[in-house]
Amino acid sequence: MGKLKFISDKFLLVKLSVLLGCFAASSAFAKEKPNILVIMSDDAGYSDIGFSGNRLNKANFQTPNLDKLAASGVVFEQGYVSASVCSPSRAGMLTGRYQQRFGHEYNLPVRPEPGDVEEYSGLNVEELTIGDHLKAAGYNTGIIGKWHLGKASQFHPNSRGFDHFYGLLGGSRSYWEGDGQDTDYRRIYRNKTAEKYEGYLTDVLTDEAINFIDQSKEKPFFLFLSHTAVHAPMEAKAEYLKQFSHIKDTQRRTLAAMTLSLDESVGKVMTALKEKNLLDNTLIVFLNDNGGPSDANFSSNLPLVGIKGTLAEGGVRVPFTMSWPGKIKPDTYYDNPISALDILPTALAVASADKQGNKRLDGVNLMPFISGEETSTPHKTLYWKRAGFAAVRDGDFKLIRFPDRPAVLYNIKQDPYESKNLADDNPPIVNKLLKKLFSWENELQTPLFMTHSKWVKQNRERYTKYTNVDKE
Amino acid sequence: MGKLKFISDKFLLVKLSVLLGCFAASSAFAKEKPNILVIMSDDAGYSDIGFSGNRLNKANFQTPNLDKLAASGVVFEQGYVSASVCSPSRAGMLTGRYQQRFGHEYNLPVRPEPGDVEEYSGLNVEELTIGDHLKAAGYNTGIIGKWHLGKASQFHPNSRGFDHFYGLLGGSRSYWEGDGQDTDYRRIYRNKTAEKYEGYLTDVLTDEAINFIDQSKEKPFFLFLSHTAVHAPMEAKAEYLKQFSHIKDTQRRTLAAMTLSLDESVGKVMTALKEKNLLDNTLIVFLNDNGGPSDANFSSNLPLVGIKGTLAEGGVRVPFTMSWPGKIKPDTYYDNPISALDILPTALAVASADKQGNKRLDGVNLMPFISGEETSTPHKTLYWKRAGFAAVRDGDFKLIRFPDRPAVLYNIKQDPYESKNLADDNPPIVNKLLKKLFSWENELQTPLFMTHSKWVKQNRERYTKYTNVDKE
Repeated sequence: MGKLKFISDKFLLVKLSVLLGCFAASSAFAKEKPNILVIMSDDAGYSDIGFSGNRLNKANFQTPNLDKLAASGVVFEQGYVSASVCSPSRAGMLTGRYQQRFGHEYNLPVRPEPGDVEEYSGLNVEELTIGDHLKAAGYNTGIIGKWHLGKASQFHPNSRGFDHFYGLLGGSRSYWEGDGQDTDYRRIYRNKTAEKYEGYLTDVLTDEAINFIDQSKEKPFFLFLSHTAVHAPMEAKAEYLKQFSHIKDTQRRTLAAMTLSLDESVGKVMTALKEKNLLDNTLIVFLNDNGGPSDANFSSNLPLVGIKGTLAEGGVRVPFTMSWPGKIKPDTYYDNPISALDILPTALAVASADKQGNKRLDGVNLMPFISGEETSTPHKTLYWKRAGFAAVRDGDFKLIRFPDRPAVLYNIKQDPYESKNLADDNPPIVNKLLKKLFSWENELQTPLFMTHSKWVKQNRERYTKYTNVDKE
Repeated sequence: MGKLKFISDKFLLVKLSVLLGCFAASSAFAKEKPNILVIMSDDAGYSDIGFSGNRLNKANFQTPNLDKLAASGVVFEQGYVSASVCSPSRAGMLTGRYQQRFGHEYNLPVRPEPGDVEEYSGLNVEELTIGDHLKAAGYNTGIIGKWHLGKASQFHPNSRGFDHFYGLLGGSRSYWEGDGQDTDYRRIYRNKTAEKYEGYLTDVLTDEAINFIDQSKEKPFFLFLSHTAVHAPMEAKAEYLKQFSHIKDTQRRTLAAMTLSLDESVGKVMTALKEKNLLDNTLIVFLNDNGGPSDANFSSNLPLVGIKGTLAEGGVRVPFTMSWPGKIKPDTYYDNPISALDILPTALAVASADKQGNKRLDGVNLMPFISGEETSTPHKTLYWKRAGFAAVRDGDFKLIRFPDRPAVLYNIKQDPYESKNLADDNPPIVNKLLKKLFSWENELQTPLFMTHSKWVKQNRERYTKYTNVDKE
């Protein structure tokens, strides 16, 4: 009840200021609070974004705007997401809470099977999103692009803290309008109305993002620009493909062209912010949602091992940067592990926004850590879990637990490429970390929906093929 | 379609024989096929039934009728159930299939929480029960006592192959009629009509079983007498308690008195069969549904370690005997591992009944193994799984996998009491068994309902307290 009243009061304030024609006052309010822009790419490889991973790769994959964004702020050298697949990763980022706390352990079922109940197949309605928190703080909130947090009406972005939605409710679609993209999951909606578009989806989402920024004059904005790039299907613009004719592998060539469109989007949005004189007052976060699925979109996570779906570093450590001119020093590199769970608490801190509700956040405000004001590490322990596979990072050690082989242990500081399994030589550490992990698991809610066996099997096969876990 | 047609034909045959007054023909039909009686106790300790476990215990716990039944046939020295808790164990036994194949991995939720959907909270409606198979073969089918396989109408025993039901839909209730026993889960129903009863429930179920046998004159019968004894609440008849005044522990005294009522039930039913001259033509199976929960009903599984909920021998190896005068030699002891999954295929074989449907059975017909005609082992491998805990018995080896500690390995032939963990000295066997287990897991369906964290935690604590898995 307290929460509802609080929201009403804020709305009342905003409404009054508009009614009284107090535009000056509104602008002052807008200036007080920074805009917050989160740009997320989908399934990009750690190696395929210039500022992260294998910097030698720059010759092939061009991401000049992302590199410029990164150079203007902080690069998180150990930036983790809370899941190695799309939907739970987004659920964690948007709530600032381990998504398994509210039953979002698995990816959303593609097609309902017995036990999949649409009523529960989405972001638990008892959770608040970053949109809810910032809307209550007077922000204009928008999501443009991929939602992938439930199709039923109770899960619609407009019901989950976002004033504005333009995009798809599902996980991926063709980059072009056309046949077969007209299911509820793939269709493009403007809020609740389906719309056709023209052109290449990455460009369309970019234009929509710029329009949203244009329309956020009265209030500070929070925008989640949630690209489908570079998720399959592998579809690039013909003129961009030409630029990469030197890449012989046609799949890699397509990915490079798709990545260039993604990068161009970042450049266009930054230019728009600059033109509107908003760049200095906008916190921009860029990250990818999980490791690149090398077996699906031919991305590369080198030098990390593992891919999307695995809990090896290549599955959960992602390109992750944050920029805020004047507030974050350029060319900063931050080396302690941080998490996408930290975006929400950081946003609330910079927006001087109160946290709504009484639920525990797992993320922390990163600003004092980035500035060096706080010298401790933001997370002594980080946890991951999906379908019997689980991992814990505790200090420098990381343990991965499997259903089909003994747990493996790595020292990530000494061996970030997870090449040397220390488990056999360190049973006490293995036991300690397994117990920590299980203790965390006992805090979690029963999954509201689950992944079917074939995906669990695929998951396991990806470990065998893409990590150093003992080959068969 | 084929199946439905088959059932109709059988029904037609039976109806016709009744219409034409062919009682003699019907009786001949009844004589041809043996009656089948499965008596299941609930939560009894391995040590607390005379013919199994710690035979030294006989001085305290008296089960003369069960011992007589066992002496008249075969005692399975390694008789396993397919789950260490009630509902999945019953689901496996009644279908002859690993219950996880159809999403029945967990116990039924006691109270619905988000994610528990009543529509799916029961024995998957796509499965056939032993009742369905035997009904199609012309049997009069009944279940008397505990159902615990779903409360919603589609799960009702009358819809799952049982012509007759008298008992409770839930997992347990008071042994006496009274306040608080009137929820849908605890109330006693005769088919779909709630009824009050007088007296002690174990006696009431016994009388009902004898009535059912009386009324099965026209057809052979299949009866599942599913006692709630000796599940908590700990309630015994006063006059029986007196007989055990020498047992100082009042909880153990109560359990002994409850067990005597259970045993008396077996005696009464056998007497009724004898009086009706049916004993020679009735296959009787007695087993317990899972290990005794020593922390709840003060049962003892000695000399086995582990209790209900764990996959140690004390959780899944149960008192298990089968009698069929003239067909099974008295005083037979069978030492290879067998499973409750075998009851259905054995019943179909002795009834010369066709298996309905095209689903794979995991159990086997035990008769040739008991007779010695077949000298191989019925099951090279047996599997168990619930909530991240899983086990595999492969030949003499048994591996238990945990979420919070490394897997343990025992040689059950040499060490049935699971005292010596061989895992550290046998990594190749550990790896092989983990892979076998996971390969089986990949055949399973996503759970239709789940157990909540607190039960998983309890499960883990039971391992620590009641098994030899490294103490903390």
